[in-house]
Amino acid sequence: MGEFELIDRYFSQLGAQRADVVQGVGDDAALLAVPPGQQLVTCVDTLVAGHHFPHDSHADDIGWRALAVNLSDLAAMGATPAWAMLALTMPDVDEEWLEGFAAGFGALAMQHGVALVGGDTTRGPLSISVSLLGLLPTGTALRRSGARPGDLIYVTGWPGDAAAGLALLQGRLQGHGADRGALEFKFRRPEPRVAFGSRLRGIASSCIDVSDGLAADLGRLVAASGVGAVLRAAELPLSRALYALAGEARARDFALGGGDDYELLYTVAPGARQQMFQLAASAGAPACHCIGEVVAGRGVRVLGERGELPVPRGWDHFHA
Amino acid sequence: MGEFELIDRYFSQLGAQRADVVQGVGDDAALLAVPPGQQLVTCVDTLVAGHHFPHDSHADDIGWRALAVNLSDLAAMGATPAWAMLALTMPDVDEEWLEGFAAGFGALAMQHGVALVGGDTTRGPLSISVSLLGLLPTGTALRRSGARPGDLIYVTGWPGDAAAGLALLQGRLQGHGADRGALEFKFRRPEPRVAFGSRLRGIASSCIDVSDGLAADLGRLVAASGVGAVLRAAELPLSRALYALAGEARARDFALGGGDDYELLYTVAPGARQQMFQLAASAGAPACHCIGEVVAGRGVRVLGERGELPVPRGWDHFHA
Repeated sequence: MGEFELIDRYFSQLGAQRADVVQGVGDDAALLAVPPGQQLVTCVDTLVAGHHFPHDSHADDIGWRALAVNLSDLAAMGATPAWAMLALTMPDVDEEWLEGFAAGFGALAMQHGVALVGGDTTRGPLSISVSLLGLLPTGTALRRSGARPGDLIYVTGWPGDAAAGLALLQGRLQGHGADRGALEFKFRRPEPRVAFGSRLRGIASSCIDVSDGLAADLGRLVAASGVGAVLRAAELPLSRALYALAGEARARDFALGGGDDYELLYTVAPGARQQMFQLAASAGAPACHCIGEVVAGRGVRVLGERGELPVPRGWDHFHA
Repeated sequence: MGEFELIDRYFSQLGAQRADVVQGVGDDAALLAVPPGQQLVTCVDTLVAGHHFPHDSHADDIGWRALAVNLSDLAAMGATPAWAMLALTMPDVDEEWLEGFAAGFGALAMQHGVALVGGDTTRGPLSISVSLLGLLPTGTALRRSGARPGDLIYVTGWPGDAAAGLALLQGRLQGHGADRGALEFKFRRPEPRVAFGSRLRGIASSCIDVSDGLAADLGRLVAASGVGAVLRAAELPLSRALYALAGEARARDFALGGGDDYELLYTVAPGARQQMFQLAASAGAPACHCIGEVVAGRGVRVLGERGELPVPRGWDHFHA
């Protein structure tokens, strides 16, 4: 079976049907209608087998993940995702694998109204690169660079769970039962905070998604803003499952230094605190925890009960 | 050196500087301003070492090629390229290689006014996936599906040269001197027909770029249009260098069945013939040859002096 039949069979109708797709898969390029008053928001992320997910991952989990990591980048800008392109490199044409991959990718695409509008299939070691395009009203994007001293630092969800899930899958952490299942699922099926990201527009002063570890990504945010940050270790949200399997100290290491959370880390100016309370209390909002404060200076410090704690270096996606 | 330093050093300022890039490399996603009245045109193409270019290719040729194959897709739509994203997977951090890659990519990007607005660098077997975004006035895109019986079929340039150049590099074809150099250069440095593609808007009834072989890509164009095509073998443009090194019969096989031409293959309705003559005679237009005619029916037939010739299957980018 050739490239074109492959694309036709599995990818030509994947995801949502959108009226703004003038031409999707099937020509030299896709044709898309951008509504007036909107800016385009674009990102790309590549997953390489054995680096970004275990070699024995299920095909549907890989398909889900390939889109999820990009959705999380758009969420961090406050954008609404619209169109995706998929560059898929695989060692051979395995139809069962393709079916699973398309199912995982398609399920998440449907959930977020994303149409797959283009793609390219090549033979080689398994690697998936997704480009995602989204929209937002001109001038409303959340940026990394807007944090100011005195702003409060928030994170959604339960950072560290996904990294602990991966450690369980790889035998670096031991555990059984529902706790194990919950953490593994957090790694296998990240839920990017797309809707919440768009609701943070006008409330957050800066935002980044947590993909390489909370401390490392906060380091990037404060560097882009030209400020520093102080985190209070006691305020870090640790899930019951993570606490149960890893213990407090190791759980905190997962939360600060683990990766693959795909939560949002954002800052809120004191004047927007009331709006933030209301948002956090509204229907559909994820758990949001205030974990520290933006300060003048540089870098990230973590304060424990007995003074400063070492800051984990965090993941680097360019890792062996 | 980590991913972020890499991206910063080689890719944060690559290509053209554009006023419509609100945020380029350096945040979770890029922010782009789409002018009113324009449609967005997007494509993605992946190059895998050993499949799409020889393992021993120069880094600057690889960088050039990664952008060129995408520029050619936009050219086939008549679009003007604007923004690129780069997903680069490499086995290790080789600064000399990166410098060469950035130089080749950057030179072609500058030539076409393309800004690199996002990227992702990962470790793994060498593979490059470029997403390219372009613009055109709403409703003016060239499509594969517009060919009608009676339309004339044109191709730009000298198809087969690049495939012969690859054959020379791989030892499947023998030759020396200037002819060899010219053909190898056609493979190493494809010149996508971007300016000419945009000038074909309103003149061509359909268009596709020739990447997998003239006959195969024409087959796709006529299938999308629901028509057939008859090519006259005697009208195929064969470059002097190709003719000299391969001889007539083999030269024709390269022209019909070879890949990597990145020429434009398009159809012109009889009523637009005069406009086509004027365009072909205008400054900066590439050589354009009429090679056949669109007919009712299906498929591609090639007529030689003594009847019908076999049609080469063409390349499939999903090849081993």
